[in-house]
Amino acid sequence: MKKYAFGVDIGGTTVKMGFFDAEGALLEKWELKTDLTDNGANILPDIAASIKAKVAETGATMEDVIGVGMGVPGPVNEDGVVLKCINLGWGVFNIEEEMSKLTGVPCKAGNDANVATLGEMYKGGGAGYDDLVMLTFGTGVGGGIIHDGKMISGVNGAAGEIGHMPMNPMETEPCNCGNCGCLEQYASATGLANVTKRILAAFDVNTSLRYYEPLTAKEIFDAYKEGDPLAKSMVEDWGSMVGKACATIGIVVNPDVFVLGGGMSKAGQVMIDVVEKYYNQYVFHAARGTKFVLATLGNDAGIYGGVKLALDAAKDICTC
Amino acid sequence: MKKYAFGVDIGGTTVKMGFFDAEGALLEKWELKTDLTDNGANILPDIAASIKAKVAETGATMEDVIGVGMGVPGPVNEDGVVLKCINLGWGVFNIEEEMSKLTGVPCKAGNDANVATLGEMYKGGGAGYDDLVMLTFGTGVGGGIIHDGKMISGVNGAAGEIGHMPMNPMETEPCNCGNCGCLEQYASATGLANVTKRILAAFDVNTSLRYYEPLTAKEIFDAYKEGDPLAKSMVEDWGSMVGKACATIGIVVNPDVFVLGGGMSKAGQVMIDVVEKYYNQYVFHAARGTKFVLATLGNDAGIYGGVKLALDAAKDICTC
Repeated sequence: MKKYAFGVDIGGTTVKMGFFDAEGALLEKWELKTDLTDNGANILPDIAASIKAKVAETGATMEDVIGVGMGVPGPVNEDGVVLKCINLGWGVFNIEEEMSKLTGVPCKAGNDANVATLGEMYKGGGAGYDDLVMLTFGTGVGGGIIHDGKMISGVNGAAGEIGHMPMNPMETEPCNCGNCGCLEQYASATGLANVTKRILAAFDVNTSLRYYEPLTAKEIFDAYKEGDPLAKSMVEDWGSMVGKACATIGIVVNPDVFVLGGGMSKAGQVMIDVVEKYYNQYVFHAARGTKFVLATLGNDAGIYGGVKLALDAAKDICTC
Repeated sequence: MKKYAFGVDIGGTTVKMGFFDAEGALLEKWELKTDLTDNGANILPDIAASIKAKVAETGATMEDVIGVGMGVPGPVNEDGVVLKCINLGWGVFNIEEEMSKLTGVPCKAGNDANVATLGEMYKGGGAGYDDLVMLTFGTGVGGGIIHDGKMISGVNGAAGEIGHMPMNPMETEPCNCGNCGCLEQYASATGLANVTKRILAAFDVNTSLRYYEPLTAKEIFDAYKEGDPLAKSMVEDWGSMVGKACATIGIVVNPDVFVLGGGMSKAGQVMIDVVEKYYNQYVFHAARGTKFVLATLGNDAGIYGGVKLALDAAKDICTC
């Protein structure tokens, strides 16, 4: 009886490692520094070595390991092929096969935002549902789509790239992706602060937001709670845009629940309330009333999603 | 060995019936008049009687029937529960259980647009793919989402309701659904004709489109092919809106292929070309190059999708 599994979240600065039992309980977590030298050629060997060391440390062997599931900061298609990972220096290759060779156990991988969404379904804010959509609000807007308990990765690994939903055809400033008018230009923590700064520069409005340097999404949500009129207007506009994006997703996959996460979700229930209000205003009547909840796993969502991938893959092997 | 299966497409005027062999080859098709009396209480019994008569006619028995799959003109959730069908007078009930009781064989059901999408995947324009999205352009805009070879129905049966994607926050005229600014207000055949009529009434532009009464989407596409400048502008705007909607769907589920159907798709390849052009302009770079094809089954898509539902359900039963 195999006893252990690993969930791994590969980022541009650190790799988050999670060591789990066969029921998905977290036994231990730690971090590795991401080695970006040599086009990231050492990243997978470093992870494999760390996995083997942890297993040896417990007195077990790799025979006791069910598998490894990984989140990767770039597109990964349904077959486990990484389609370039600019942050890490990676090109196109099958990461599942590569990691299986290095560890000797089955490996599964997905885009990091998709894997984090799976984590929130497994042990986080979306627990109890198997059709859910997560949106994360940080430097950008990330997302993931889960249908019937499984990630939708997409033919190009681009499913769940909700931050790049086209929202504003009039925008002239480019998004990081090269297009203009993407959701994340307005709705990410960075985007909300940028849009607010534009307003502050253009209008002589009386607001507490003038006195923050740097001004971030946190201050805007705090001022909203204090009743500041500009903050109120900014948060309402933000909620309207995110609510509209969710209404659009609502008539594509019509999930059980939307999970809102990322650094900005520390704002708490107000964030849910304002998005839910506009969602119900914009969405097709049959899809009204969808639940909205906050993500609860924070930076651990990726390792939980990773281990869920590994455990599900083991279950999918027919033993009839 | 069971030899037959049925695909049924229930509409507000007629019920399309398809009698298939176990490999999904169409043996015979016919229509029933939809009996709307008594809140549609006779519709399912009429279908069941017609199925039994067809089976008896071949000298077979219901023991030879694998199952029945049905498309319904309203939302049907993942469990086969119809969530009201206003056109038919139906309330909320489990249509799969009801039809199984009437026929004595397994029955599956889905929303008609979703089932038609499954049909196009099975034997139509989307054959060979198992992640596809269909949009149909007729009186309204319908749609369906297939992931991993199966329909996504959604918690409220509202998945694939692409016609109600919120597109224009400035619209003051209501859509049939009660919201304002839905995709189908502009992009359906009716919508395209309406928007064109608005322009003809407001501007003194020189165009052959003035001489049609009634003016329909067909004339607009025909005039586009002839080089009429207003028709060119209208079709480009239409393509831009549909391309943008597909770009949005592209970053949610990132399918292998988009299938365009409905009466308007008789316009042919020009419709594909104009949508594809704007899709690639709007979509996140990783999802560029997705295939666009025309639907090929026309009004038979629903019966093909129905039989696919029935055959898949039979395969899903574990016989280990």
